Amino acid sequence: MAASPYQQLEEEFRRLHAFRGALAVLRWDAAVMMPRASADVRGEQLAAIEMECHAILVSPKVSRLIDRATANAQGLEHWQVANLREMRRQRDHALATPNTLVSRLAKASARAELQLREARRTNRYEDFAPHLEEVVHLTHDRAALLGQHLNLSPYDALLDEFSPGVSTTDIDVLFKALARRLPALVREAIELQIATPAVPLQGKFPLAKQRALSMEVMKALGFPFERGRLDESEHGCTEGMAGDIRVTTRSDINDPFQGLLGALHETGHALYDIGLPREWHDQPVGRNRGMALEESQSLLMEMVLARSRPFATYLQPLLEKHYGVTGQEWQAENIYRHLTRVRHGLLRIDADELTYPAHLLMRYELEKRLLSGELPVADLPEAWASAAEMRLGIVPQNLAEGCLQDLDWAVGRFGYFPASAVGALISMQLWEKVQATREDLDEEIIRGDFAGLVGWLAETVHALGAKMTVQELVQDATGRPLSAAPALRYLEHKYLEPR
Amino acid sequence: MAASPYQQLEEEFRRLHAFRGALAVLRWDAAVMMPRASADVRGEQLAAIEMECHAILVSPKVSRLIDRATANAQGLEHWQVANLREMRRQRDHALATPNTLVSRLAKASARAELQLREARRTNRYEDFAPHLEEVVHLTHDRAALLGQHLNLSPYDALLDEFSPGVSTTDIDVLFKALARRLPALVREAIELQIATPAVPLQGKFPLAKQRALSMEVMKALGFPFERGRLDESEHGCTEGMAGDIRVTTRSDINDPFQGLLGALHETGHALYDIGLPREWHDQPVGRNRGMALEESQSLLMEMVLARSRPFATYLQPLLEKHYGVTGQEWQAENIYRHLTRVRHGLLRIDADELTYPAHLLMRYELEKRLLSGELPVADLPEAWASAAEMRLGIVPQNLAEGCLQDLDWAVGRFGYFPASAVGALISMQLWEKVQATREDLDEEIIRGDFAGLVGWLAETVHALGAKMTVQELVQDATGRPLSAAPALRYLEHKYLEPR
Repeated sequence: MAASPYQQLEEEFRRLHAFRGALAVLRWDAAVMMPRASADVRGEQLAAIEMECHAILVSPKVSRLIDRATANAQGLEHWQVANLREMRRQRDHALATPNTLVSRLAKASARAELQLREARRTNRYEDFAPHLEEVVHLTHDRAALLGQHLNLSPYDALLDEFSPGVSTTDIDVLFKALARRLPALVREAIELQIATPAVPLQGKFPLAKQRALSMEVMKALGFPFERGRLDESEHGCTEGMAGDIRVTTRSDINDPFQGLLGALHETGHALYDIGLPREWHDQPVGRNRGMALEESQSLLMEMVLARSRPFATYLQPLLEKHYGVTGQEWQAENIYRHLTRVRHGLLRIDADELTYPAHLLMRYELEKRLLSGELPVADLPEAWASAAEMRLGIVPQNLAEGCLQDLDWAVGRFGYFPASAVGALISMQLWEKVQATREDLDEEIIRGDFAGLVGWLAETVHALGAKMTVQELVQDATGRPLSAAPALRYLEHKYLEPR
Repeated sequence: MAASPYQQLEEEFRRLHAFRGALAVLRWDAAVMMPRASADVRGEQLAAIEMECHAILVSPKVSRLIDRATANAQGLEHWQVANLREMRRQRDHALATPNTLVSRLAKASARAELQLREARRTNRYEDFAPHLEEVVHLTHDRAALLGQHLNLSPYDALLDEFSPGVSTTDIDVLFKALARRLPALVREAIELQIATPAVPLQGKFPLAKQRALSMEVMKALGFPFERGRLDESEHGCTEGMAGDIRVTTRSDINDPFQGLLGALHETGHALYDIGLPREWHDQPVGRNRGMALEESQSLLMEMVLARSRPFATYLQPLLEKHYGVTGQEWQAENIYRHLTRVRHGLLRIDADELTYPAHLLMRYELEKRLLSGELPVADLPEAWASAAEMRLGIVPQNLAEGCLQDLDWAVGRFGYFPASAVGALISMQLWEKVQATREDLDEEIIRGDFAGLVGWLAETVHALGAKMTVQELVQDATGRPLSAAPALRYLEHKYLEPR
């Protein structure tokens, strides 16, 4: 019997999946293994495969099959209908942006990234500004086209790439609640912590030992090392997918926790990939539900779990085993104080759990104004400084710790920051629910038994793939609509508790 | 101005080149970095990209462009004409073998390889035979189709993949001359060496030190580590291409030379890739001229250069530096004796310079008979044993050191062994010429100055890409037709010299 249009579509997307898997390995290799001068060669390989992926999505064949499968959708099962919807979604996103614009944006981004790194060094914003200007301009065009095609406002169209279903209106409601309470909460927490300072942790922590520690914790969480790796790279990342998943982290010989926290963040991503519905692994509906949910999983591990008191208790003997450290300052309570230390800091990537959302909020507000043209690119440093003062309580002294600290805008990634903030809110809403569901959770964590926690996440989040919207998924998982209330309850309880 | 058909072809082959580069990285990763259980995922990625490469070559568009470019060839330059010929050659090879046959062969090969590894352990040939039978059968079909298409005999069609322009008739002439003299030469050399035994070299040679030694020698040869890597893997290989070239070797903690010799073999391949004409690097004419010439470059490094007296002199202080070894047995003359030790051995990959060709000769004779059906697969072990007795002077005691030692036939690689033997002959013919051309070559080698040698190879071999046939290239490089005479002169002089 000839394959149905729907079946033929599955075959096309299977091929797409294999290409994307190859891209992931090539990107991982570029970050971890590639000889330093070989970026040009790799660029050509990535571009050729990316072009092929784009060509599959925009091919008349795929569009014809989508139309025919849609017309005959009555015979499809629930998952198949959702898969067809996700196929259409990917096709629409690809169709909306012409190849020429994608290619111009890629070139402008490469230039802007280079200039950003240079401007960090020289602190000369004016050298970088024209390049950012170009990227903002092209991204605006892309957003407008995408918005036209998807019947969304330009910025909402970008959001849709990162967190399907979540609109600016949704985010504004969430962030308003957060912004109302967060600054005071940070101040109160810092005041409380002054009264209970942590004893400093000193020493050198060789990278091989940090790696062994991270691997032991990752194994306990269920990371499958027979089908995965942990390596060092300049920026932590997760590449690959269930079957061959690769996590990288960045360790600092002077910091006992940085490598581990990075590895845990990426393990959150990896466990999401591994928990995706196996039978749909090579289809759009079997992939993750976008960046907001991705970040909910990584932040749940890095920020929520890893900075919990039971985890500090679990960690103490492991630190002794791997680092050979003993003494009062390596007791669980002092470890916990270090991991929950709140600071007015300038760098997002070093931010603690409590101030992290503030970093994202200010970026969200700035990037919307940049894209709409309301904030001229030339005025960004000033706007950044006053946003930092208001949101973080501290003003950057140079561009590297100010508006040049992130690569995202330079490479045209607008929409990521709010998605990450939504992810942070979701992580805490999920945490509240799993704590209520598993009454022995704290004891399990202390013993290093994470099967219950990871199993619950797999069941309520991972196994659903891209079957529903972010909001539907959160509603089903927690029994309540997505909101900032659980996050605020959690943060108040954790950071304002009497110590 | 619209691109000409020829220019459009260059664009298509540029894309093909990028895909092949991606395949090389994915294969390297599978050999060196991939988690052990991830082979299934990798298989899907490789298959998707390989299918795309095949699809480009057999596309009506490419054939149409080839026809049109050929009709308008009068405006093309010399290199472009050669490029068009190589494009047609690749297209013809791809067109000749239908996708279904390629896919059946890939599956049968995967099964046969698995069974071969199993049969090595159990020594049960009968479990492996049906799988080899199937591969031989399918390879025969492939060769017949290829031969029909290329107007060659089936076996010549396979040879054409490995050494373009070299026919069975050519090989028979070369091998006859070799076979006539080689057995007696081996006997005489062994007798002579009995009178001048080498002092045993003992010790443990940690892999990190072997790696440092290999890297130092590779750097001296001009291997560009800013655009390349050296790693360990089960089988040595060279993957990638100029711009990002990756060499692997297999080291043995008990053997001071194995890792280095393997690295030198692969460095020969790598230098070939690096020396290919830069402006044609992404076009068929800018690629290597097949396996015979590839092997001439790797064997020249591993067998000829590395086993020369000047090289032993160069090596001595490096061994002292990296291994900390001193004493009489680590003097250059004793190192040389070790590296030129001739043995009646059963394993091809451990063979010395003098007996190596004999291993290839017997495989050539057997594989021709296997493919033609004259030698039934069931009778291979017996035929192997008598060939080994005749050619190597020694009979295998089990299958692992007999007909199951190589993977090549199990995976359908027929035609590689004679190409490798032709490569060995070419390496010695080139060596005779470069010695005559550069009168200070020995002194250069002793100083570790390989620029003259590598420069000569680059100029006479590497820089010509696939512009001419193997025979034309050898004729131009050495001033004489390809023949076994230089090899025999070289081997007699080297192995029958009074010590």
